[in-house]
Amino acid sequence: MGSSHELSLDARLLVIAEAVDQWLDAFKPDVLAIERVFAQTNLSTVMGVAQVQGAVLVCAARRGIPVAMHTPSEVKAAVTGSGRADKASVTAMVTRILRLDEPPRPADAADALALAIAHAWRSGSAFSAGGESATAAQQLWRSAESKSKTKKNKEKPGATWH
Amino acid sequence: MGSSHELSLDARLLVIAEAVDQWLDAFKPDVLAIERVFAQTNLSTVMGVAQVQGAVLVCAARRGIPVAMHTPSEVKAAVTGSGRADKASVTAMVTRILRLDEPPRPADAADALALAIAHAWRSGSAFSAGGESATAAQQLWRSAESKSKTKKNKEKPGATWH
Repeated sequence: MGSSHELSLDARLLVIAEAVDQWLDAFKPDVLAIERVFAQTNLSTVMGVAQVQGAVLVCAARRGIPVAMHTPSEVKAAVTGSGRADKASVTAMVTRILRLDEPPRPADAADALALAIAHAWRSGSAFSAGGESATAAQQLWRSAESKSKTKKNKEKPGATWH
Repeated sequence: MGSSHELSLDARLLVIAEAVDQWLDAFKPDVLAIERVFAQTNLSTVMGVAQVQGAVLVCAARRGIPVAMHTPSEVKAAVTGSGRADKASVTAMVTRILRLDEPPRPADAADALALAIAHAWRSGSAFSAGGESATAAQQLWRSAESKSKTKKNKEKPGATWH
């Protein structure tokens, strides 16, 4: 899927919305986790990101699929233990946690996977069972979780379900 | 239609999208004209406005209805002759141009009508015929148009069809 700059804004948003419609119908996710973007962080692109969010949020809402938003530093803290981790660290941890043979490509895919991992961890829905049956991935996860909890995150607290 | 703050963001966007769907199906407009908002102008609300834009743009694109964006000062210049006109002047001119018995309520309705008038004028699709058959509204319109053309607008030129 691409949203070429040769298309008008509304046509590009439609390309995205129709792809999201297809994914939601094909994979029937229980929840959508998306990045919470602050207007302060990148003025030049924030409008476009928010427009895409609006389109995607409606796709989810039409199907009754709840949407959660997490900030980039919440996601980084969840997978690496540090809210200030660089992209390489996030990709490395995602690759280890999911026991992938190689880093996800393109690089944005690692961010998306990190967001999904962070959501599952923060919402307490994943790996809630403990004990010796934990896989290596679960152990890594718990290790990241406990590391993260010992650090202060400078952003606003919590994944806000809006 | 309301989009209560008691609802989640995605639910509120859905309320708006479904209302827009209904309006587009009921009125079958040839074009949608919406306000072009700059990220610079109001940081606290710009994200929400852009999210709504995204939802609305997809509604239009699904139906093949083109969307035009005009800046607030383009709209003000079109209806009052000044890109810096205050809200009262815009409302007064909208009321005169459309020969309404009283100002549109709520106040935002006057802004929406001004946007529609500005679009029709800027796109050259309305009142292109001249001569003595012009109505009072058309004369007012042309007067506003010629006034506006003699002034420099400090914003970027033109209504960009994106």
